[in-house]
Amino acid sequence: MSERLVVIGADAAGMSAASQARRRRGPDDLEIVAFDAGGYSSYSACGIPYYVSGVVADLDALIARDPATFARDFTIDVRLRHEVLAIDLDKTAVLVRDLEGSSERWERFDQLMVATGAIPVRPPLPGVDADGIHGVQTLDDGVALRSAIEADRPSRAVIVGGGYIGLEMAEAFCALGIDTHLVEAGPQPMSTLDPDMGALVAHTLREFGTTLHLDQRVTGFDTVDGHVVAVVTDAGALPAELVVLGLGARPNVALAQTAGIPIGPSGAINVDRRQRTVIEPVWSAGDCAEKIHRVSGQRVAIALGTHANKQGRVAGINLGGDYATFPGVVGTAATKVCALEVARTGLGEDEAAAAGFATETVVVESTTRAGYYPDAAPITTKLIVERHSGRLLGAQIVGREGAAKRIDVLALALWNEMTVAELVNVDLSYAPPYAPTWDPVLIAARKAWQRVEATRAGSR
Amino acid sequence: MSERLVVIGADAAGMSAASQARRRRGPDDLEIVAFDAGGYSSYSACGIPYYVSGVVADLDALIARDPATFARDFTIDVRLRHEVLAIDLDKTAVLVRDLEGSSERWERFDQLMVATGAIPVRPPLPGVDADGIHGVQTLDDGVALRSAIEADRPSRAVIVGGGYIGLEMAEAFCALGIDTHLVEAGPQPMSTLDPDMGALVAHTLREFGTTLHLDQRVTGFDTVDGHVVAVVTDAGALPAELVVLGLGARPNVALAQTAGIPIGPSGAINVDRRQRTVIEPVWSAGDCAEKIHRVSGQRVAIALGTHANKQGRVAGINLGGDYATFPGVVGTAATKVCALEVARTGLGEDEAAAAGFATETVVVESTTRAGYYPDAAPITTKLIVERHSGRLLGAQIVGREGAAKRIDVLALALWNEMTVAELVNVDLSYAPPYAPTWDPVLIAARKAWQRVEATRAGSR
Repeated sequence: MSERLVVIGADAAGMSAASQARRRRGPDDLEIVAFDAGGYSSYSACGIPYYVSGVVADLDALIARDPATFARDFTIDVRLRHEVLAIDLDKTAVLVRDLEGSSERWERFDQLMVATGAIPVRPPLPGVDADGIHGVQTLDDGVALRSAIEADRPSRAVIVGGGYIGLEMAEAFCALGIDTHLVEAGPQPMSTLDPDMGALVAHTLREFGTTLHLDQRVTGFDTVDGHVVAVVTDAGALPAELVVLGLGARPNVALAQTAGIPIGPSGAINVDRRQRTVIEPVWSAGDCAEKIHRVSGQRVAIALGTHANKQGRVAGINLGGDYATFPGVVGTAATKVCALEVARTGLGEDEAAAAGFATETVVVESTTRAGYYPDAAPITTKLIVERHSGRLLGAQIVGREGAAKRIDVLALALWNEMTVAELVNVDLSYAPPYAPTWDPVLIAARKAWQRVEATRAGSR
Repeated sequence: MSERLVVIGADAAGMSAASQARRRRGPDDLEIVAFDAGGYSSYSACGIPYYVSGVVADLDALIARDPATFARDFTIDVRLRHEVLAIDLDKTAVLVRDLEGSSERWERFDQLMVATGAIPVRPPLPGVDADGIHGVQTLDDGVALRSAIEADRPSRAVIVGGGYIGLEMAEAFCALGIDTHLVEAGPQPMSTLDPDMGALVAHTLREFGTTLHLDQRVTGFDTVDGHVVAVVTDAGALPAELVVLGLGARPNVALAQTAGIPIGPSGAINVDRRQRTVIEPVWSAGDCAEKIHRVSGQRVAIALGTHANKQGRVAGINLGGDYATFPGVVGTAATKVCALEVARTGLGEDEAAAAGFATETVVVESTTRAGYYPDAAPITTKLIVERHSGRLLGAQIVGREGAAKRIDVLALALWNEMTVAELVNVDLSYAPPYAPTWDPVLIAARKAWQRVEATRAGSR
């Protein structure tokens, strides 16, 4: 009799794992069934803001593979609108409710892949469940939001939270001509950047038409007839016809936790290098699973599709009988805010301090192309390096076209634990349309190394 | 009495060295004088094609620092139109001719920096010295070429050589409405790419209006009244009102060689890690100096401004009494050919074989952005990896906007001797405007690793 792999969550991590397992083990050897409470499989959550704004016109474009494709090409049984209610490790079965028919049944497994993803943070504030308050986590959320905009044509929206989703939604709303307000508890939007770099983002957001309400905490929502009419903060009330919550997401681990699958200090499911939990037949990958941060050495919860794909792939290779390990992350992320490209990797100043590092920082202004070449655009690069050793610990980039992808060089430098002294001489590509003879990354490395040497000299 | 540093060549390498030395040693401690036969200091040779095409309108834009600036800000005495005719190591002096006044005199040195750069390959073919045949090496060449185009308004031009300069000039001439022909001895233009990748460049050149004459060798030039009228190849004569020679450049080492400064097998001046020649007070950096290729392990001659800057900086730090070493290159280069972005790093297939590596190769088609995001552009990535180990040996990228700079990630992977198995999981930035969830680089690494594993399995 064949083994049976049950996958909870039919998105990036779950379906990468399922596909990789299938490539290595045929249907006679391994039956694969995936359950998902939502209405879509394998979609790009990161594309949702662009669907809401209309930059991406067609919903189907965001769906990499639908259940029919999985059935036909992979012999994988994907059941959408099927919610897993419980995991019973003793009888190695999950309790599944068909959300259409409302029936419930136990489905047995030999191997279990927990890919339950993340759930948006939704603080228990007065009025938070009112109509007109949207999350942007699932594709169903995106569909609901775009429908609401098309139906109600709101003239004024408030976004709560200045993270990636919040800023991408702010851009989308401004582009749609909506009077857009953004409330952020911190001193600058995008708290994943240091405040000096976040200030550059704030400037661009304001230029594009977003009104920022910084250093304000949301205390509740005013409603009329069950519909939101204002976001209330510790500084007053902001009228709103539409509200988007962009307060981040946390690992969706309730099912696993209830079943007794260990959760790590990060709040995500504890996994080993091969994506195994400590419970023998249970695996986990994606937003619900821990990652090792290679710079801080800590286990972290980071919700990002690219990690989900990679961890899912590793789990699937192992489920398929081969061998693979996931080496961890360095905290790379990028986004586009209006015409501004924003990227970061490694640790910010506060994160580096929290990890125990003493640091030096430099901020360097340069251009994305040779200064004399048309469309040479400004780029600001910040490096955080370890004092004395000059080891790179983190980097942040804010600039115009051609800026963001340069973070990858710094991510690879972090990956290999390089010092800025070594990075200075690295053989990066140079041609006037792409870079000055000293790439902005290298200029920053030079300045950082000068700073390190000055500190060394000063402490002699 | 202060030491005296004489610099031969007032461009990237020489002036980087001079500036770094000056930062560490004041004018009372170190006198610095630089001689250059040309009429400009510290200019961007890579910018010349864009000056010829008019994309860069103003010559001054290509000059980073002129002699007045060096005198004022650095107390460095830069003498242009001064040609060094000989180096006498016994009397530690150089013989200098003032090309304006035609006077000659000996100038003593305590330290000598040889930064004589490269000279264009100019085969001794019949007619090669005719009017209308231009090199594109120095800024003086660029000025002469643009003047000739503006004065003569040529309707038909032939470019000899399909390397970087040849292709950039082809683009410039097509943009100016000139009927442009390019002769190349190899099967495809851009022989620094493997032929399969070069074919993609050929396609774009033809689309843009360049007529390619491939697999043809130039045997001479027809002239009338001392002016070129045709380029003669082994396949016939190509009429030409203007000819550009783009046959590459070789290290300009005649002065050094005559003086007895050792030249390496690469044809460039042999230097140690600190840019010292084996002759005690003589240093060298830039196009005339050897570089260690970190992948092949060979010493190579590569003419590129970014290396010249880096080697010059290292020499200058050492001349200034501090300590720095140049760690070598991995062969990274990039160019823009019409709308096509082209980049390479490491070894090509033939180079890898010549270095003794057994290889696997993969070529992968992908997009520069998420497939559903506007302006997602095609990108073709080729990886050359070591058989069995999967160590990355080289990479080539041809694509549209956003393609070329991705080579830097692969350059850094080479730098750190990474395998494609490790590269697969590297934490590169992801956001729909910048990349698919699997970046093209990572997709290529995945495929390459599959290929390596298949070969391993097959050889068991």
